[in-house]
Amino acid sequence: MTDDLSSGDALLSDALARIQREVDAAMAGFLPVPDDARAPLVEAMRYAAIGGGKRVRPLLTVATASMYAVSRDAAVRTGCAVEAIHVYSLVHDDLPCMDDDETRHGKPTLHKAYDEATAVLAGDSLHALAFEILSMPETAGDPFVRAELTAALAAASGWNGMAGGQMMDMAASAGDYDLPTITRLQQLKTGALLGAAVEMGAILGRVPEEGRGHLRAYARDIGLAFQIADDLLDIEGDEQAAGKALRKDESAGKATFVSLMGVEAARMQARALVDQAVGHLAAHGDEADLLRSLARFIVERDR
Amino acid sequence: MTDDLSSGDALLSDALARIQREVDAAMAGFLPVPDDARAPLVEAMRYAAIGGGKRVRPLLTVATASMYAVSRDAAVRTGCAVEAIHVYSLVHDDLPCMDDDETRHGKPTLHKAYDEATAVLAGDSLHALAFEILSMPETAGDPFVRAELTAALAAASGWNGMAGGQMMDMAASAGDYDLPTITRLQQLKTGALLGAAVEMGAILGRVPEEGRGHLRAYARDIGLAFQIADDLLDIEGDEQAAGKALRKDESAGKATFVSLMGVEAARMQARALVDQAVGHLAAHGDEADLLRSLARFIVERDR
Repeated sequence: MTDDLSSGDALLSDALARIQREVDAAMAGFLPVPDDARAPLVEAMRYAAIGGGKRVRPLLTVATASMYAVSRDAAVRTGCAVEAIHVYSLVHDDLPCMDDDETRHGKPTLHKAYDEATAVLAGDSLHALAFEILSMPETAGDPFVRAELTAALAAASGWNGMAGGQMMDMAASAGDYDLPTITRLQQLKTGALLGAAVEMGAILGRVPEEGRGHLRAYARDIGLAFQIADDLLDIEGDEQAAGKALRKDESAGKATFVSLMGVEAARMQARALVDQAVGHLAAHGDEADLLRSLARFIVERDR
Repeated sequence: MTDDLSSGDALLSDALARIQREVDAAMAGFLPVPDDARAPLVEAMRYAAIGGGKRVRPLLTVATASMYAVSRDAAVRTGCAVEAIHVYSLVHDDLPCMDDDETRHGKPTLHKAYDEATAVLAGDSLHALAFEILSMPETAGDPFVRAELTAALAAASGWNGMAGGQMMDMAASAGDYDLPTITRLQQLKTGALLGAAVEMGAILGRVPEEGRGHLRAYARDIGLAFQIADDLLDIEGDEQAAGKALRKDESAGKATFVSLMGVEAARMQARALVDQAVGHLAAHGDEADLLRSLARFIVERDR
C-alpha cells in the first residue's frame, strides 16, 4: 500500500493502514454470520465489505471529524456507513446487466464468487446496513446528528446522487456527452458520496451548515480530481495493481475527461483541482494536514 | 378494488381507496423527473411506485398513527417510506436472476418495461428514497422520532429482516424446510416490514417502546396470516385478479405453509391468526376499527 505514495507521506500511509484495519474490524462486528440459511448472504456481504478497497471515504470522514474533536469510534462507524453504500454500489455495478466485471480488488466479483441473486441481495443488505449503522445511538448520541447523517447519506445515494450518476454513465456509451455533462455526471456518480463522507465528518463535529462551505468546496474539487485520476488510470494503469479490468471506457467508446481533454490537460487539471482543494483548507492549521495529504494521494495513487 | 371485500366493509374500502390516492400523490411529489439523462431512472421509479399495489403497508402505518393523533401528512409520508422499501424489493425480486417474473400489478415488470440495469438502479434509488423521506423534518419534526423511524425501517429491511428472508426463500427450493423454519422465513421476508409499518405508526405517535407490545403482537399475527393467504392465493387464486403469475411455489417444489399443513388447515390457521391479532387490540376502542378491518381483509383478499 505505502509504495503508492510517491511523496513518502508517513502521516497518510499510517492513516490509510489504520483506517483499513478499523473498517475491517467494525464491518466484521456489524456482520455476525447467522446459523441458518441466511449465512451465505452475510458471508457474501463480508466478502464484499471486508479486506478490500483503499477506504478513502471512511478516511475522509475520520479526517474531517478529527478536526472537530469527534470520538474516533463514532467517526469510524459513520465512515463504515458511507463505505457500505460505496461497496453495495460496486457489487451492483459489477453485475452482468450493468458493467459486467469479473474482478474487483484482485479477486472475483461477488456474483462470480457466489451468484447473481446473492449479489443483488448482498448489495441491498449492505445498503440497509448503512442506514442501520447511522440510526444507532452508539454512532451518535444526539438523535439530531443521526437524522442529519441519514439525510446526507440518503441524498448522496439515490437518483439525485450516486445512482443518478450511474444512470447517466450507462446512457453515456453513445459518447455524445460534452465536458459540462461529464462533469455533472461525475459529480453525481463519484462526487456526491465523497462529499457526503466529508460532510458527515462535519455533522458529527456539529459544524453548522453555514460553516461547511469550505469543506464542501474541498470535497467537490477532490471528487473531480479523483474521477480524472480514475480516467487516467483506466488508460495508463496496471491491471495487476488496480485489481480490476482497465481500458473499459475506451473500448465502450465512452466520453471521459481524458477523451475530451487529452491526457496532458487532464493531468494538469487534476493537479490544479488538488491545489484548489487544499486552498479551501487555508483557514485550518495542522489539524487539516491529513485532508491535504489525502487530496494529493487521490491524484498520485496507482489504483 | 372494493369487490375484494366480502364483508362489504365501507370503512376499509374507503380507507384503501384514500391511501392509494395519497401514496400515489406523495410518490409523484418525491419523484420529479429531471431534465437530463437521469429521466429514464426516475420514470422507472415512478412506473414501479405509482399506481399499483394495495398499499397495505402505508395503510397499516396510517391506521396505527391515527390512534395516537398523528398528523395525516406525517403518517402518509412515513407510509411512503415503508412502501418504497416494499416496491424496491418487488423490483429486485422480479429480476431474472431472482424470481424471474414478467408481470406485476397487471403490467410488465420493471426490467421488462425498461431493462435489467435500470431495474437494479431504480430499486436501489427507491431504497435510498425511503431513508431520504424519513430524514426530512417535514416527515417528523422531532429528530428523535426521525432517528427511531430510520432504525425500525433499516432493521426490517436488511439481512436480519426482509432481505434475509428472501435469501432463505431462495435456498428453499430444496424443499427441506419444516414448519418452524418456514415460519421464521416468512417472519423475516414479509413479517418484518409489515411489523415496521405498524411500529412506525406508533413511533410517530410517540408510544414508548414498552407500550408497543400489543401492536407488535398484532403485526406478527397478521404478518403470518398475510403469508398464508398469499400461499393460498398462489394455489387457488385467479392470475387476472392477482396481476402476476401464480402457482410458482408448487412448480418450484417449494415448501410453504399450505404444502406443509394442507389447504384446509392453512385456511383455518390464517383465520385463527386474524382472530388472535384482533384480540391484541382489545384495549382499544373504535379508534382501532381500521386495524381490525385490515386484519380481516388480509385473509379475505383475492390478490
